Amino acid sequence: MVELADCLEPVAADLDSLDSFLLGELSSDSAAIQDLVRHVSGYGGKRLRPALVLLSARACGQEITPVHLKLAVIIELIHTATLVHDDILDGASLRRRVPTVNALHGNQVSVLLGDFVYARAFAMSVELPTPDASRVLARVTQVVCRGEIEQVFDRFNLALKESQYLRIIEAKTAELYSACCELGALYAGAAAERIAALALYGRNIGIAFQVIDDCLDLIGDEAVVGKSLGTDLEGGKLTLPLIRLAQVLEGEERRRLHALILDEGAKNRRARLLEEFELGPALDYSFQRADAFIHRAMDELKVIEPSPARDALHNVAEFVLCRKR
Amino acid sequence: MVELADCLEPVAADLDSLDSFLLGELSSDSAAIQDLVRHVSGYGGKRLRPALVLLSARACGQEITPVHLKLAVIIELIHTATLVHDDILDGASLRRRVPTVNALHGNQVSVLLGDFVYARAFAMSVELPTPDASRVLARVTQVVCRGEIEQVFDRFNLALKESQYLRIIEAKTAELYSACCELGALYAGAAAERIAALALYGRNIGIAFQVIDDCLDLIGDEAVVGKSLGTDLEGGKLTLPLIRLAQVLEGEERRRLHALILDEGAKNRRARLLEEFELGPALDYSFQRADAFIHRAMDELKVIEPSPARDALHNVAEFVLCRKR
Repeated sequence: MVELADCLEPVAADLDSLDSFLLGELSSDSAAIQDLVRHVSGYGGKRLRPALVLLSARACGQEITPVHLKLAVIIELIHTATLVHDDILDGASLRRRVPTVNALHGNQVSVLLGDFVYARAFAMSVELPTPDASRVLARVTQVVCRGEIEQVFDRFNLALKESQYLRIIEAKTAELYSACCELGALYAGAAAERIAALALYGRNIGIAFQVIDDCLDLIGDEAVVGKSLGTDLEGGKLTLPLIRLAQVLEGEERRRLHALILDEGAKNRRARLLEEFELGPALDYSFQRADAFIHRAMDELKVIEPSPARDALHNVAEFVLCRKR
Repeated sequence: MVELADCLEPVAADLDSLDSFLLGELSSDSAAIQDLVRHVSGYGGKRLRPALVLLSARACGQEITPVHLKLAVIIELIHTATLVHDDILDGASLRRRVPTVNALHGNQVSVLLGDFVYARAFAMSVELPTPDASRVLARVTQVVCRGEIEQVFDRFNLALKESQYLRIIEAKTAELYSACCELGALYAGAAAERIAALALYGRNIGIAFQVIDDCLDLIGDEAVVGKSLGTDLEGGKLTLPLIRLAQVLEGEERRRLHALILDEGAKNRRARLLEEFELGPALDYSFQRADAFIHRAMDELKVIEPSPARDALHNVAEFVLCRKR
């Protein structure tokens, strides 16, 4: 069992300073804003994305500078804004064991707070010594939104193929992971080949992360995962385990699965799915696919010189896969 | 009666080229995105904000360059993103005589599309020759969101004072008007004094614009204004005419007004308000306040050399006031 804290050891001290840096950057002359941003500042939880920024910089031989710390905070803010808006889309009431902003203050405030946090992140990126981060992050945000919009339009689309699902999660999740590693390397002055390799490393662990996340949404334990689960099914999102399950089922059984997915008003659909269908093989298949992406990510690390940071990136990839347990 | 088209004559040709430029910038490899952005590309309607960018540049003696056109498109995109998200907040079903994105595709798509358009605007601003636009626009977006969030928290707050109302509309509306003029002048290489004067000009017409808008929400004709009206009252927004009306009413009448405002479930509240209360004096007061802001705006133009563009800015200020008719 890989523990994330162990993986992140080479940047543990930097990550510790990130929280106070983050809160400092979120100060506002408006009491309403101040309270809201503090509430959501812990949404990122694991701090996996900022850790990837810092580890990528270190893996390219760069000591962590204030520029990298700022970059890590910006990435965390963009991720936080995405989560605030995601919770509206999912109708989620719980995030990291605390009530979501939409549960507390309604969708209006959630929309505006997400916009505010995005804008704060862009404002910070403009203060960096080169426009690379601003350019990459504006691109990433567009790609993430494109992926999420396509996902909404494909709700309850029983014909969704695995390749279409992968295109969506590459956009909505893996693009930001890729940017973490790309920018960490870029602001460490790395050569183009290493920047590209780390960007691909990030992209592949991002895809694997989302596949695992989608499995956990079906079989995870809310108390362990720390957020509302079963929301994909409630929202009609066809994720890899469901796509695979529909593929392996036949005739009447497949029709029953489709009916369960389409039955928008039904309660406890997750419980019914687990009770009425044998998910094992579809989950195994999904974990195997995640495993393949993780190994592609590990392969990309071969162009990076051996170092504790490179080992850490290797271990992070393993951790992403182990989240299934 | 001032016609906007006449005011904008000095930049009419540039504004004509704006629409095709805008559509070109909004192209996407995703068919879903492409359709959505084309749908909202006309939301801005009057193109008042891009016109202010171009007129401010010309008033500072600068011929319109591709940089200014790009700046005008960026401003229009940010305004468009705000409108897409506003329609969620207001639950509006009609914008510029066409159905809103939330009416067509639901709140999820509206949230994501607004995010996408914001990000596209930031991406374009990063391509400009200096980071000034990115810095100003990231700041503006934060201020706009702060204003809107404070407004949401002040819904149904019968104790809201005129000064608090003005602080809110200065943030949510006037900040972007101010940025249009500031950036137009700044990218024309104007001296600091003129940039500051034009920024204040924009701020004051922005405040006046919102006061008039809030009056029209109560007494306007949907067919003329081209959007859902009465939404402020439905959403519990205490705008200047209502704040003033509550001030001048006494005893039982004031209690009846408060009851009408607080009666969240009631239908046709706008019609009842107009029928049961004498709004005239409160509206006159609001128009007088708007008039005062317009004259402050006109005063700021005194440091700018006479030119057709300066005259146009003067006329735009008059137009903003005349919207009451």
